[in-house]
Amino acid sequence: MSYPFLKGHGTENDFVLLPDHDGAVHGDLAPERVRALCDRRAGLGGDGVIRVIRTTAAPVAAELGETAAAWFMDYRNADGSSSEMCGNGIRVLARHLVDAGLVDGQDFAIATRDGDKQIRVDGDLITVDLGRPELLGETTVAVGYRSWAARRVSTGNPHAVAFVSKLVDAGPLTEPPTVDPRVYPDGANVEFVVRRGERHVAMRVHERGSGETRSCGTGACAVMVAAADADGVGRGSTYRVDVPGGELAVTWTHDDRVMLTGPAVIVAEGQTDL
Amino acid sequence: MSYPFLKGHGTENDFVLLPDHDGAVHGDLAPERVRALCDRRAGLGGDGVIRVIRTTAAPVAAELGETAAAWFMDYRNADGSSSEMCGNGIRVLARHLVDAGLVDGQDFAIATRDGDKQIRVDGDLITVDLGRPELLGETTVAVGYRSWAARRVSTGNPHAVAFVSKLVDAGPLTEPPTVDPRVYPDGANVEFVVRRGERHVAMRVHERGSGETRSCGTGACAVMVAAADADGVGRGSTYRVDVPGGELAVTWTHDDRVMLTGPAVIVAEGQTDL
Repeated sequence: MSYPFLKGHGTENDFVLLPDHDGAVHGDLAPERVRALCDRRAGLGGDGVIRVIRTTAAPVAAELGETAAAWFMDYRNADGSSSEMCGNGIRVLARHLVDAGLVDGQDFAIATRDGDKQIRVDGDLITVDLGRPELLGETTVAVGYRSWAARRVSTGNPHAVAFVSKLVDAGPLTEPPTVDPRVYPDGANVEFVVRRGERHVAMRVHERGSGETRSCGTGACAVMVAAADADGVGRGSTYRVDVPGGELAVTWTHDDRVMLTGPAVIVAEGQTDL
Repeated sequence: MSYPFLKGHGTENDFVLLPDHDGAVHGDLAPERVRALCDRRAGLGGDGVIRVIRTTAAPVAAELGETAAAWFMDYRNADGSSSEMCGNGIRVLARHLVDAGLVDGQDFAIATRDGDKQIRVDGDLITVDLGRPELLGETTVAVGYRSWAARRVSTGNPHAVAFVSKLVDAGPLTEPPTVDPRVYPDGANVEFVVRRGERHVAMRVHERGSGETRSCGTGACAVMVAAADADGVGRGSTYRVDVPGGELAVTWTHDDRVMLTGPAVIVAEGQTDL
């Protein structure tokens, strides 16, 4: 069996997209197929797989409730498990929907397991509204014998944001940083951050279950909120957030929502029988 | 500009193939494009790029001299430089030539910068004749504070083959193993080998300029020759060589040639504008 795919990335967070508009191609989309597609040697390679499916055909359509979105992001992690949301992944999906003429206009919603997400396309840049961040207390993260104070932030998933003198201070990050299991019973994504200028920071990120990655959309938002709070700037501000794979912008709106903006590109499309 | 590609692998040594039969698509094939294609996040990902071009259209056709081969393997490393040969790469190219009906029969030659290489296709398995191995003296390789006696073997490129008690003994191989600069002025590929049974070994490999890889065709041949010599078996024998990405077989013929046999598959094809 051969079926269509696309490959794309947002600041080098990369994804295999599987057009399956009516759900007829992939059925339940077996975890084995997701792992085979994401394998970086034997497959196409990706941080995750996004099935492109109409909301009405989505396997979880009945659970989605009221939605104005025509398309559902059926997101799978590289290990085959499903995830509620992915800030860079939904921007890559939006790029494909626009390129392929599957949506009208530049403002539209995409349904996810975490509810509808509002998208805005502006030329090369695509923005997603990631909702209300939760700025929590202080904590500590450690790598080997070194430890840093960190801020706890939730942007849909749990983050620990540590400001450091230099991004190299955290070392090669081949092992997960240590976080406090009392406040992070399921672990956390850990961001290391340096200031680059006014409303401009740079970060590295270690993602739970994925290791160090080139970019993390919810992580960039967590970093921005922690920085804006530490700077006494707060809501109604925009920060540039440099990640290893490129440049993102995060706006924390007056009405307490975080907007993630950055490039998203499709680099290839074709057929596979993986 | 959008152009065709295929992705394939041989024991998880993976390659992007670029059909360019008459050389009209890619001209000189810029190193920047090769690097963009091989980028595992922003591109398609691969250990190298193979341009599929007719011998008569090859940029080095005038230098190839007499050749009976219709097709030339224009091989590029992931960093954009060109290489004479790649034992797994040429098997993947052969798979494509057969699948696409670009060659007649199951026995044919492919031209390379290292001369014509003879191919034999037998169902899922593809064999390439890698020529005469050179079995040289003893040397020493080291990783950190540990060192091992090793055999020097040349199979087109220089190898140091170290028999170890366990494959994990060499550690994570995040740094290149140390080799003797007097015998390896340009460095070497280093193989760590354990015996699994009669005429059956398993290996890991650290390749010059690439780090630890899932498979190395010339490395598997170097390992086989060193093992067959150490075992007192010599020529006229076949060994199974397990690599991290799968299983290869190497035959050292009575007339002193090494034949590399293993699977080679195409997993996807499409269009890209990288």
